[in-house]
Amino acid sequence: MAKELGITARSENYAEWYNDLVKRADLAENSVVRGCMVIKPNGYAIWELMQAALDGMFKATGHVNACFPLLIPKSFFEREAKHVEGFAKECAIVTHHRLMPDGKGGLMPDPESELEEPYIIRPTSETIIWHSYKNWIQSYRDLPILINQWANVMRWELRPRLFLRTSEFFWQEGHTAHATSEEAEQESLTILDIYTRFCEEWMAVPVVAGIKTEGEKFPGADHTYTIEALTQDLRAIQAGTSHHLGQNFAKAFDVTYQSSEGKQEFVWATSWGVSTRLIGTLLMAHSDDNGFVCPPKLAPNQVVIVPIGRKDDWERVVAKSDEIANTLKSTVWSGLPIRVRVDKRDRESPGFKFNDWELKGACMRIELGPRDLEAGQCVIARRDGVEKRTVTIDQVVEAVCEDLTGLQQALLERARTLRDTNTKRVENWDEFKACFAGEGGGGFVLAHWDGTPETEKRINEETKATIRCIPRTPLDPSDVEPGKCVLTGNPSQQRVVFAKAY
Amino acid sequence: MAKELGITARSENYAEWYNDLVKRADLAENSVVRGCMVIKPNGYAIWELMQAALDGMFKATGHVNACFPLLIPKSFFEREAKHVEGFAKECAIVTHHRLMPDGKGGLMPDPESELEEPYIIRPTSETIIWHSYKNWIQSYRDLPILINQWANVMRWELRPRLFLRTSEFFWQEGHTAHATSEEAEQESLTILDIYTRFCEEWMAVPVVAGIKTEGEKFPGADHTYTIEALTQDLRAIQAGTSHHLGQNFAKAFDVTYQSSEGKQEFVWATSWGVSTRLIGTLLMAHSDDNGFVCPPKLAPNQVVIVPIGRKDDWERVVAKSDEIANTLKSTVWSGLPIRVRVDKRDRESPGFKFNDWELKGACMRIELGPRDLEAGQCVIARRDGVEKRTVTIDQVVEAVCEDLTGLQQALLERARTLRDTNTKRVENWDEFKACFAGEGGGGFVLAHWDGTPETEKRINEETKATIRCIPRTPLDPSDVEPGKCVLTGNPSQQRVVFAKAY
Repeated sequence: MAKELGITARSENYAEWYNDLVKRADLAENSVVRGCMVIKPNGYAIWELMQAALDGMFKATGHVNACFPLLIPKSFFEREAKHVEGFAKECAIVTHHRLMPDGKGGLMPDPESELEEPYIIRPTSETIIWHSYKNWIQSYRDLPILINQWANVMRWELRPRLFLRTSEFFWQEGHTAHATSEEAEQESLTILDIYTRFCEEWMAVPVVAGIKTEGEKFPGADHTYTIEALTQDLRAIQAGTSHHLGQNFAKAFDVTYQSSEGKQEFVWATSWGVSTRLIGTLLMAHSDDNGFVCPPKLAPNQVVIVPIGRKDDWERVVAKSDEIANTLKSTVWSGLPIRVRVDKRDRESPGFKFNDWELKGACMRIELGPRDLEAGQCVIARRDGVEKRTVTIDQVVEAVCEDLTGLQQALLERARTLRDTNTKRVENWDEFKACFAGEGGGGFVLAHWDGTPETEKRINEETKATIRCIPRTPLDPSDVEPGKCVLTGNPSQQRVVFAKAY
Repeated sequence: MAKELGITARSENYAEWYNDLVKRADLAENSVVRGCMVIKPNGYAIWELMQAALDGMFKATGHVNACFPLLIPKSFFEREAKHVEGFAKECAIVTHHRLMPDGKGGLMPDPESELEEPYIIRPTSETIIWHSYKNWIQSYRDLPILINQWANVMRWELRPRLFLRTSEFFWQEGHTAHATSEEAEQESLTILDIYTRFCEEWMAVPVVAGIKTEGEKFPGADHTYTIEALTQDLRAIQAGTSHHLGQNFAKAFDVTYQSSEGKQEFVWATSWGVSTRLIGTLLMAHSDDNGFVCPPKLAPNQVVIVPIGRKDDWERVVAKSDEIANTLKSTVWSGLPIRVRVDKRDRESPGFKFNDWELKGACMRIELGPRDLEAGQCVIARRDGVEKRTVTIDQVVEAVCEDLTGLQQALLERARTLRDTNTKRVENWDEFKACFAGEGGGGFVLAHWDGTPETEKRINEETKATIRCIPRTPLDPSDVEPGKCVLTGNPSQQRVVFAKAY
């Protein structure tokens, strides 16, 4: 099957399978601009559904959207020293503001238009936003500020991969300002919870939520929370982060407020984001050798109706298909009208269409032939290989809703089983190394660590595994019992999650 | 009133009134980045409502969204000669991809990271999109392509004005590909109709729809359709454009398809866009010396409840206000839940709050004091100055819906009256010049023009008026009767619309 469709099998080469999948499911492609992607309609529709769901969750918790400039003055990056170290290396720099004829029939940057100070295309917006917040915040009555923006950002990538790591990518970035550290902490945890729920309830991807080590945290943060998912090749993928920024940006941009007691205090901050990388995470979590498998809540095509018939029957089955489609479109499932289409292509065989829609991620297929029509029934096939069944046309709405709900649950359960089966507890260095031997991933390995950056670094150098997080809620009560570091034997308070990461 | 609030009166200085309005209504502000704005939550919420409405109209007519890169290789601008003339002058040019320490504690572009070919931040995306379409289109079966993208774009502005003309702005840009010129023409008219309806039905702004002259059309288009609105200072504002691009971009990027007869043909194209300039148009159309007046369909704050009471009454009126707010929030008006908030600030007087919400564009206010509470009633005040009325609390939902509908209609009627009152038909050059004498606008002037660019230019030089469009549907049947050019006396087929423009 896979070969006919031009998709490499996962077992053969997972990286190639992923590339084939993105391309053949018509989700995105590389552009002529280095490291940047074109997100095609079938892929962008997933992002639109993700945005709508997340935006609703942010607004339900009191957040509002705004928009800050794409460009950031270079000097802003010089203000927060740790931030610049972490970010300001590979980025797109704007130096001129005018093109002129080059005298050879082409164009060149006009030397007279060189900017006094270059601008950087935002890799993230903390600096420019805190520059604005300085003017917005005077008193405790101006706090909290709970702002999010949906934006494109750019970090020059030398080894891009579609959705997972691209120079330009799309994300939301929340930037909040608070009177106290406690409020900022609460905010960063509220968002961590939203991200966790979104992954599980919408993406059908179970995640481990926890805190990053000092070495892995966001440059400029006091501490960073993360959610980590497991892919089918048993690597970790960081799916979202929520940062308690302390007073670092407030100090860098001199943002203070007058407290209710009349004292001037620096403001506390958080920032948090998820990006189009979530689409990569989604693809890696559920898809198979036949193509894209998408949880119904985020699927651009939930139901595809394939009419089957020769010339004399064709019009009748198409008419009935349209009728069923209209009934489904006026049915609400999970808060939205069902997304359905009828595949009326008249040159392709039914078999080709079945494969094509499996490839492109339709959640379920309805087959309708002339005999079905006479019998008042149709055949339903769910994308995850549950056996086809025949239902009467009267029951089709009910059956579709049942299957959409069933598929959403089944994908989460399958992903949870994969994750749980590949989460191991390891006690000594030989076992640990064995987990991460070879080219593939090694799943999540819960092991004790002595808490030092030196040990963290040595473990990484010897195994390529990194500490993905210190889980916030122990996966098992025994995980928070003291033990001995897997490498050094030094004392440790709890197990942490190791994995090879994307 | 105006002075207390810090808003200049329109009659005193319209330009300053506009700047004060944008600032005091908390919609947007200038950023530290030249010509770029920060859109604040109260302003961005308008854009979100505009996006939702337009996106629904695009999707209902078969369009889908996608996303193309922010950056465009310089050489792409060299391919379509007229396009580059029109656009490629003032733009942001990316020349380097890495920052490095400058040895003085700061950062500088790493000279080794200079790009072989500079990138331009997109001023519009025809070139990069048609570069992609070349690979997407082989046969007539791949057509039409009906793609839109919501994006930020950049054109370096030396004299920026918030929302009206900024270096970075936000828009949607549709880019469609068709097998025939007729289909492309139909598409550009479908969109012109959507824009016209959106302006009238959502923004409560009547527009004149028509075709641009050769001198005013989009660089690279065969012809350009436009919608033109009139502001309160009697200038025209171009609110949206829809271009029939002919085969110009298909030829520049070598995009052909095989027709059903097996012939290779160049593809036909359209592009079309509206931007955050619509927010400026909205502000200019309806707002007054007290602040922002917003048609309810696009108002972030449709209803503000102001509880009034001293300490012992305060909790009771607030509780009742919350109850009313919740009832309204669960009521659907014009397809969406009513957007309502309760102003619980405890240091500000009711009078301050009334003014503050008039300033910020709430469509209506509900006042609720202890006596109202006892009498089971409240006071309702509509933003356009309709006399306050008292209604029972039982009737409040009905009254609110009625007032929202009434305000939406009243604003459109008021704008239509302004437009009609200031649309004149002029027969000779002296009359014409008199219309446009002085600093202000002169309304829409319908006059005959001989169709030559020379005359168009002379009229502009002498009066500052431009031809806004040749109306697609005559405003009056007599407008399409032949006549004599207002300047040269040469023959003319129909009247065209002149105005001073933003």
